Amino acid sequence: MLTDMDISRRAHLKYIAALGAEFGLLPDEMQLFGTTKAKVDLCVQQRLAEQQQGKLIIVTAVTPTPHGEGKTVTTIGLTQSLKALGNKVCACIRQPSMGPVFGVKGGAAGGGYAQVVPMQELNLHLTGDIHAVSSAHNLGAAAIASRLYHETRLGKAEFELQSGQNYLDIAPNGIRWHRVVDHNDRCLREIEVGLGENNGPAYTSGFDITAASELMAILALSRNLADMRARIGKLVLAVNRQGAAISAEDLGVAGAMTAIMADAVKPTLMQTLNGAPCLIHAGPFANIAHGNSSVIADDIALKLADFVVTEGGFGSDMGFEKFCNIKARQSGLTPSAAVLVTTLKALKANSGLTSDADINAPDQTRLEAGFANLNWHINNVARYGIPVVVAINRFATDTDAELNWLMEAVAGTAAFGCELSEAFSQGEAGALALAQTVMRACEQPSEFTLLYPDDMALEAKLSTLAEVGYGAAGVSLSEAAKLQLQELNALGYAHLPVCMAKTPLSISHDPQLKGVPQGFTVPVRELVLNAGAGFITALVGNVMTMPGLGLVPGYLKIDIGDDGEIIGLG
Amino acid sequence: MLTDMDISRRAHLKYIAALGAEFGLLPDEMQLFGTTKAKVDLCVQQRLAEQQQGKLIIVTAVTPTPHGEGKTVTTIGLTQSLKALGNKVCACIRQPSMGPVFGVKGGAAGGGYAQVVPMQELNLHLTGDIHAVSSAHNLGAAAIASRLYHETRLGKAEFELQSGQNYLDIAPNGIRWHRVVDHNDRCLREIEVGLGENNGPAYTSGFDITAASELMAILALSRNLADMRARIGKLVLAVNRQGAAISAEDLGVAGAMTAIMADAVKPTLMQTLNGAPCLIHAGPFANIAHGNSSVIADDIALKLADFVVTEGGFGSDMGFEKFCNIKARQSGLTPSAAVLVTTLKALKANSGLTSDADINAPDQTRLEAGFANLNWHINNVARYGIPVVVAINRFATDTDAELNWLMEAVAGTAAFGCELSEAFSQGEAGALALAQTVMRACEQPSEFTLLYPDDMALEAKLSTLAEVGYGAAGVSLSEAAKLQLQELNALGYAHLPVCMAKTPLSISHDPQLKGVPQGFTVPVRELVLNAGAGFITALVGNVMTMPGLGLVPGYLKIDIGDDGEIIGLG
Repeated sequence: MLTDMDISRRAHLKYIAALGAEFGLLPDEMQLFGTTKAKVDLCVQQRLAEQQQGKLIIVTAVTPTPHGEGKTVTTIGLTQSLKALGNKVCACIRQPSMGPVFGVKGGAAGGGYAQVVPMQELNLHLTGDIHAVSSAHNLGAAAIASRLYHETRLGKAEFELQSGQNYLDIAPNGIRWHRVVDHNDRCLREIEVGLGENNGPAYTSGFDITAASELMAILALSRNLADMRARIGKLVLAVNRQGAAISAEDLGVAGAMTAIMADAVKPTLMQTLNGAPCLIHAGPFANIAHGNSSVIADDIALKLADFVVTEGGFGSDMGFEKFCNIKARQSGLTPSAAVLVTTLKALKANSGLTSDADINAPDQTRLEAGFANLNWHINNVARYGIPVVVAINRFATDTDAELNWLMEAVAGTAAFGCELSEAFSQGEAGALALAQTVMRACEQPSEFTLLYPDDMALEAKLSTLAEVGYGAAGVSLSEAAKLQLQELNALGYAHLPVCMAKTPLSISHDPQLKGVPQGFTVPVRELVLNAGAGFITALVGNVMTMPGLGLVPGYLKIDIGDDGEIIGLG
Repeated sequence: MLTDMDISRRAHLKYIAALGAEFGLLPDEMQLFGTTKAKVDLCVQQRLAEQQQGKLIIVTAVTPTPHGEGKTVTTIGLTQSLKALGNKVCACIRQPSMGPVFGVKGGAAGGGYAQVVPMQELNLHLTGDIHAVSSAHNLGAAAIASRLYHETRLGKAEFELQSGQNYLDIAPNGIRWHRVVDHNDRCLREIEVGLGENNGPAYTSGFDITAASELMAILALSRNLADMRARIGKLVLAVNRQGAAISAEDLGVAGAMTAIMADAVKPTLMQTLNGAPCLIHAGPFANIAHGNSSVIADDIALKLADFVVTEGGFGSDMGFEKFCNIKARQSGLTPSAAVLVTTLKALKANSGLTSDADINAPDQTRLEAGFANLNWHINNVARYGIPVVVAINRFATDTDAELNWLMEAVAGTAAFGCELSEAFSQGEAGALALAQTVMRACEQPSEFTLLYPDDMALEAKLSTLAEVGYGAAGVSLSEAAKLQLQELNALGYAHLPVCMAKTPLSISHDPQLKGVPQGFTVPVRELVLNAGAGFITALVGNVMTMPGLGLVPGYLKIDIGDDGEIIGLG
C-alpha cells in the first residue's frame, strides 16, 4: 500500500470553490487559499439562519493505546461512505497542532484511503488559525507584563498622570496568563522571566502548547465574531494585590487580541479523498483542553448537510465527555448518534495483561479482558442518551475469528450496532455498512442528557465527573485547589461546567491503570478559571499543559524532497 | 482628509489574479489568498530566467525622527507615479512586524493616498510568513533543548544506544539559539528556562523579536527553496563542550524547519492604491537585522517590470548600507538609482538644536543646521556609486520659503536631483516629477561599489564600516567581542560581511548624538555568527534584539467595529 503522503499527493482534488458551491456555499461566502483550501465567511450563518439542521454524529473511541485506534481514519472514512451512499455530508474536525506533527506522528489528517487532502496543508499551517491564537495569546501576555513593568517603574500617581490609564496594582505573583507556542518544548514549562536590568520585575511563569490556550477553547466555543470579542474581554490575565481579577478588557488589549483572531473565526473548507466537504476549525487537545472542533463549523455544516461527522479527542471519558458537558451544553447542538472506535489491538493493550506475544497475534485471553474497556465506553456514551455504534477499525493482521467474537460480544451490550470499518485500505467502500448502521442510529429516538446541571455546586460537579464520568471512588482536592474552589465560588463562577485535564491513557487519572479502573480517587491539583471560554479547568494528577519532545522525535524524518515537496509527514 | 484605514477600505481593488496576469504572471504561478493577496510560485523564476532585468531603485532616508519621514509613503508614492507615467513598475517591500503594529504606530503600509491595500491584511498576518519564521525558529530551539535534556538524562552510552543518534555533548551554557515571538515583549529579553522537576537542565536564554531571527535574514537572502534549505542546515544552534559548532543539520531538524517555511519562500503579491503590483516578502528590522525585503521578490519583479522600487529600513547608514554590503553583495542585484527621503521637520529635529517652537513652524536656523545630516546621507549614498535623488516629503504645514531654500541647498550637493513628493495627499499625481527625475537618474552611468571586499579582515571590516560608513574615529571591541573575533577567524568565517546592530536614531551608536556626529568610537559589545544568513552581526552599544511596549501602546485603539471590521490600525 502507498504511504499516506503518496496517496494524498496522487489524489485528484476538486477545485475547492467548486466543491464549496456543490456544498451550498455562495462564491462570496468563500475566501480561497490556493485551490485546495477556503475560509468560510460567517455571513453564511445569517443566510442559513432558518435552514433546518442535519444530524450530528460524534466519533469517539476506547482508551487510546500506542498502537493507534484510527479515530480520525474512521471519522473521515464514515464521511466518505455516507457520501458514497448519496447523502449530503460534511466532516468537522480540528486543525492538527505542530507539536505532535513534529514530535510524534507526523500528521493528523486520517490515513490510508480515508484522509483529508492535501494532508501536508492540513498538518502544517492550514490557513493560519493556530498561529493567530498563539499571537493573540502572546499579545495578552506582553500587555500584562508591560503594564506590570510601567506600573512598578512609575508608581500609582506618575503612572496615571503619564499614561492616562488606571493603575491596576498588579503584583508579579498575580500574573495568571502564561505564554504559548505550538511546539513540544519541555524546557518552557517553567521559566523565570523579566531577568536582567530594566526588564522586570521578574516573575515565574511558563509556556503552554497553543492547543491548551483558553483562546483556543474560545475559538472552538464562540458562536460568531461578536461572541468571541465578548469572551476575550472576559479573559482573566492577572489578579491584583487586592485580589481583584484583571481582565483583557481592563487592560485595553481585548480588541487587539480579537483583531488578530478576526480571520481565525472562519472555518477552513477542505475535502476528503472522495470529495466530501470537511470543515477544519480550532485545535484544542482533549487531555488538557476541551478537545473538540468548533461550534461555528458544526453550525454551518448542519445547515448545509444532512449528516455532520465530528470527533472528540481521545477516549469517551475525554473529548466525548467534554463535547457533551461543555460544547453541547454551550451550543445546544446535540448529537443524534455516536460512533465508538475500537481495534482488536486496542482491546488487548487495554486488557492490563502483559504478554510476550505480538499484539497482532490472536490472543483470546487478552481480547476478552480488554473488552471490559470497550463495554465501559459503550455504557459511558449511552449514559448521555445517544445511540452508540461500535466501529471496529480492521487491520490486515486481524483474524476473522477474533473479529467475529468481538462482533458477537458487542451484540450483548448497550450498543445500537457494530460494524467493521476498512476505510483505511478501502476508502469510501470500506465503511458502507458502518454508514448505513449510523444512519439507522440517527433515526432512533434519542434524548441528550447532560451529566450535571449548571446549578450543581462546583465540588459536586467534580465528584459527579469523577464518580459517574470515570467510575472513581471519589475526588480529592489539594490545599491549593480548595482555596481556588472557595475563590471561584466567591467570584460567582460556580455555575460553570468543569473541564478535567488528565491523562487520556486511562479512564482514571493514572496512566498505569488499564481496562476499567475502580476504587481510585481523582486528585485535583489545581482549579483554573477560564472565564472567557466558560468553564473551570481541573488539573488532575501530574498532567502537563506543555508536552516534551521524545528521544526520537518525528521531525527527524521531515524534509524537502528534490522536487521541492515536503516529505516525511504522516 | 480621510484616515489611512478609511482610504484603504474605500479603495476599488483589482482582483489580484487579474492584476497578476497584467503583471505577467501565469495563472499557475499564483496561489490566491482571497481576492486581494496571492503567493507567487517560484517556478516563475525558471520561466523568466533569460528575461532582461529592469532597473532597481532603492529608497532610503535621513536619520529617522519621531515625526516620521514617510519613507514607505514615498516608496509606494513613487511606484504609483511611475505607473501613472506608463511604466511597468513593481514595489518590493517588507512585511510589517506585529511588534510595532501593536506597540507603536499601528501599521506600515504607507499612508494617505500612497498605500498598499488592503492595509489591515498587510499589517496583520498577510499570508503567514512571519508566523512560519517564528514557528521554524522555535522548533529549532525546542530541538536543541530537548537534545540537551535527553543527553543529560541518559549519558553518552545510553543516549546513543536508545536513540540511534550521535551524542553531541551539549552543555547548557553552550546553547546559542534564542526563541522568537513577533511582539514587543520586554520581559522575555532575559529568561531562565528548564526550571522545575524533569524539565532541565536550566539555562539562561531569551526571546528576540521574529524580525531579528536569523531565519528571517535567510528568508530575505535566499535565492530559492534549495538555497534556503542549505542555509538552514548551516545554522549554528549551539557549541558543545569541545567548542565545536552544532548545526541544525547535526540535530536533524533542518529539514523540518525548512518544511515549515516552504510556503514562506514565496513572495506575496498585493497592490498599491492605483493598482500597481507590490511584492511583500520577509521583514527584517534594519537596526537589529539587515533590514531589506527579499532577493527572491526583487529577482522576480526585475524580470517582470522596467522599474522596481524597494526600500531599506531607517537611514542610509542602516538599511541602505546593509542593502549594499550584504544583500546586493550576496545577490548581485544592484541598484540603478537611490531615493533619499527627507522632510523639513526631520532636518529640524536632526539639527541637534533644541527649541520651544513648534517643529512645524518655520525655523531657518534649525533647518540649516539639520541640513548637514541630509548632506551626509547624500554623500553616503553617492559613495556606493549610485545616483541619488532627494525626495522632500511635503507636509501641509511646510512653507514655500523653506522648501525653496532646501531645494536650492540640495542643488549644491552631490545629489543628482531633488523633488517634492506629495504622494500622501495626492496619490499617483503627487510624485510625478520625482518619478521623472528618478527615471533620468536610472539612465545615468552608475558603478556600484561595495564598502569593503570579502577578503578584508573582519576587524578591518568593522573599522571600515565605523569610520567610512558612520564617520567614526574608530571602533572598540569588548573583551567578549575580541574573543569572539578570534573564534570567528579560527572557524573560517572571516570572509563574511558585517551587519551592525545599532540604534537607527543617530548615524553613530548613541541616539543622543544628532546631526553628523564626529570623533565617536563605536563600541562593539558582541559578535554573533549568522552562518546560514552569511554575515556576522556586531551588537553595538546597548542595542536590544527585543523591543518593549511603551506606556501608551498602540493596541489600546485597535478593536473590531460593529460591522466586524478591524478598526484602529494605521
